[in-house]
Amino acid sequence: MGLLLLFNGGFMLLAALVSALYKDGFTLEISLAGLTTVFFGTLMMFTTREHKKDVKKREGYMIVTLGWLCMSAAGMLPYLFTGAIPSVTDAFFETMSGFTTTGASILDDIEVLPEGILFWRSMTHWIGGMGIIVLAIAILPLLGIGGMQLFAAEAPGPSADKLHPRITDTAKRLWFIYVGYTAAETLLLYLAGMNFFDAINHAMATLSTGGFSTKNASLAYWNDNPLVQYIVILFMFLAGTNFVLSYYMFKGKFTKLYKDDEFRFYAVIIGVLTVLAALVVYLRANVPVSDYHPMVLGAGESAFRHSLFQVISVITTTGFVTADFTGWTPFLTVLFFGLMFLGGSAGSTSGGVKVVRHMLMIKNGLLEFKRTLHPNAIIPVRFNGKMVYENIVYNILGFFILYMLLFIFGALVLGVMGLDFETAIGGAASSLGNVGPAFGDLYPLANFNSLPVLGKWWCAFLMLVGRLEVFTVLILFSPIFWKKI
Amino acid sequence: MGLLLLFNGGFMLLAALVSALYKDGFTLEISLAGLTTVFFGTLMMFTTREHKKDVKKREGYMIVTLGWLCMSAAGMLPYLFTGAIPSVTDAFFETMSGFTTTGASILDDIEVLPEGILFWRSMTHWIGGMGIIVLAIAILPLLGIGGMQLFAAEAPGPSADKLHPRITDTAKRLWFIYVGYTAAETLLLYLAGMNFFDAINHAMATLSTGGFSTKNASLAYWNDNPLVQYIVILFMFLAGTNFVLSYYMFKGKFTKLYKDDEFRFYAVIIGVLTVLAALVVYLRANVPVSDYHPMVLGAGESAFRHSLFQVISVITTTGFVTADFTGWTPFLTVLFFGLMFLGGSAGSTSGGVKVVRHMLMIKNGLLEFKRTLHPNAIIPVRFNGKMVYENIVYNILGFFILYMLLFIFGALVLGVMGLDFETAIGGAASSLGNVGPAFGDLYPLANFNSLPVLGKWWCAFLMLVGRLEVFTVLILFSPIFWKKI
Repeated sequence: MGLLLLFNGGFMLLAALVSALYKDGFTLEISLAGLTTVFFGTLMMFTTREHKKDVKKREGYMIVTLGWLCMSAAGMLPYLFTGAIPSVTDAFFETMSGFTTTGASILDDIEVLPEGILFWRSMTHWIGGMGIIVLAIAILPLLGIGGMQLFAAEAPGPSADKLHPRITDTAKRLWFIYVGYTAAETLLLYLAGMNFFDAINHAMATLSTGGFSTKNASLAYWNDNPLVQYIVILFMFLAGTNFVLSYYMFKGKFTKLYKDDEFRFYAVIIGVLTVLAALVVYLRANVPVSDYHPMVLGAGESAFRHSLFQVISVITTTGFVTADFTGWTPFLTVLFFGLMFLGGSAGSTSGGVKVVRHMLMIKNGLLEFKRTLHPNAIIPVRFNGKMVYENIVYNILGFFILYMLLFIFGALVLGVMGLDFETAIGGAASSLGNVGPAFGDLYPLANFNSLPVLGKWWCAFLMLVGRLEVFTVLILFSPIFWKKI
Repeated sequence: MGLLLLFNGGFMLLAALVSALYKDGFTLEISLAGLTTVFFGTLMMFTTREHKKDVKKREGYMIVTLGWLCMSAAGMLPYLFTGAIPSVTDAFFETMSGFTTTGASILDDIEVLPEGILFWRSMTHWIGGMGIIVLAIAILPLLGIGGMQLFAAEAPGPSADKLHPRITDTAKRLWFIYVGYTAAETLLLYLAGMNFFDAINHAMATLSTGGFSTKNASLAYWNDNPLVQYIVILFMFLAGTNFVLSYYMFKGKFTKLYKDDEFRFYAVIIGVLTVLAALVVYLRANVPVSDYHPMVLGAGESAFRHSLFQVISVITTTGFVTADFTGWTPFLTVLFFGLMFLGGSAGSTSGGVKVVRHMLMIKNGLLEFKRTLHPNAIIPVRFNGKMVYENIVYNILGFFILYMLLFIFGALVLGVMGLDFETAIGGAASSLGNVGPAFGDLYPLANFNSLPVLGKWWCAFLMLVGRLEVFTVLILFSPIFWKKI
């Protein structure tokens, strides 16, 4: 935990450097936040007992959850010290939304913020994304969370089941790709006409499937620059793809890519839904166009681009916006609500339930027909040509039930706070899935600032639980966890 | 199938008798419908091959699904012949809504209908309820549907696993209770001040957890007669309870009742939710009161009664209404939406997912924590003190996934037809759960007549699929079903 804070403080000092470069006048405050964090990190490292090499499962859940909380508690210091976000509730929400790569914001006006703060805000996404890659590849599979074991077998690197070698080896390779993609997107966005500051901020928010933008209108600010939007589309797609597949692609093993069941399904579903959405948008050209979107959505290329952008943005749980999908048609509103539960691929930085889980659940559901007809036959689920162990399918089904229960409970709690039906269920689905934009009062052009104080804390909690694949956090609330062995 | 039609026709002739008694002027038309049905039933029985004693599983699914369709196709004849509902779409919807005990109606004015037709309408519920008891106790467990096997072991009667002895023996006992309850409710309602015709109609619609009323305002018509509403509450509660428990109760085995996990959970959840709803309603006495409800909802007993009524009505999927729950508070709207997925007990006439399935899923979900911490231990789910086989839990999880997928798909299809968000998801949830009242344009004081033609057929389909526990119908669409062995 101390080490995490140390890193966190280091990144804050980087933001202070950006602040100094852009002379935004807040360098001192951000540096102070960074130094405070470094101080506490160092304090924690030197006052606690020497850390054990051998981390047990129970401690694993604890470390992951507390780690994210600790990062968020420290991460709000730059906002508080500079006064960019004076309230603790708001600052915590914004930071948690950053580290969980959700991208829901409480800021009414983003563009007035100093550059250093904007950079820190995007960086919370980027750091969160790095954390998630380690989680997905190395930690969650060992903790036995929601079928992630299945996926771990596919990851490159030494296959020993100790925590240490996997983290250092596999994570390094994938982080390299993550950093490379970020650099590539920054360069491409810059060449396409963004200024360098916007380019690097959006690249960080894309690769982490976060969604914070430096503009109030999000990516709709570049509605007259389709090239920028297509670049973001490409990198959102890559960020929602298993990073392991990117690794194999760079190794020249293209067969791995198109033979991967999850990738195929992910690509096909994006294609089909884009065509569907574009068709609906195109046929109903008389869509109410908001102030942010002074373009005719019905035009051919525009309809296609906006549909593709919104579909990929919601499926990958990025949450960038070029148009208000809740203002299109009721059908598309329902569709996008459904997409909040889809999520990108496992091993990507995207949140939500994830494509592979849906595939296994659907496959298993359909095989139930077969099992019903042949009750004595053993009919396993297959994925990527291999048999999936029954306990993994069981695990995934358990995950989904808990996810849905939490969604319903989450919406009920928001309902108790007086939010209307659409806002409550949209807010819960979006927070839990780490998407960002939602429905009702939280529609894509609005923000989460209208929530009551308790609502902000609750949504921040849902973001954390969703991000850490439900089990990791909820297990801490189970009495079994605390029982002595 | 022929035999079913024969029974169906017989019941129509009974409705014709009611028509004659009340001299509503439509006796001839209803008799004609009955005779037509009897004719076709007889024709089918004598032109088809002698029926095999030994019905196979595959044929089982087919018979159940086609049986319900056949009943509904014939059941609309009285509406069509009398001109009470001139459109085939509307008549089919109303009949399917009747036989599936949903209770959603397309009738704008119920009170102008002739008595014979009103009686037939309530009777579709009652016949449907009888069918469901047989299904739940004797047929579905043998077909291996969604964990119903678990429940079958608890049913009284010979435990041979052949279809025949169970149907005749167990069904007879439970039908006896069903008929007895109906008679008792009729008598009590009559004594409480309803006229005999309304009493018997409402009794039939209560015991089947249907929800058709003879009044446009449903049970709100009796808002100045709390006794009537409490009687209906009592019998809705009984109709949503496992009929097997009623059987044991009459046998004097009361321990069976309070030792039953499902019953306890069912009773507790109704209690807790009623108190919660009543509290919210009471605290917000400034609720908009519609024309149908000229009473102050905020008054103590009234708040309690209306909350209890609506909670039981939705949980048991009856769908009677004394107040518009979508007009209370946003929180209660979300709560009632969630209740649509709950359902009553297994072995009752209620629809939805059912309490026992939720219990096993939640138990299993919580045990996942334990399993995650002790990956090598075998930790079974327990129900009523007994271990539940893993394949049954598997079965239930598969059922729930399919149910939710169908709900999402169902809402999307309604969305394509242009319904707004709340109406689409409310309509799908209500139809699939066989509840009746829904949300948005389909709110409790409205009806389903505003749906487009295709929407009515789609909702009728969802009702059928939900009623027959999803698998029974969907398996017919699976290629595996049609493959030759």
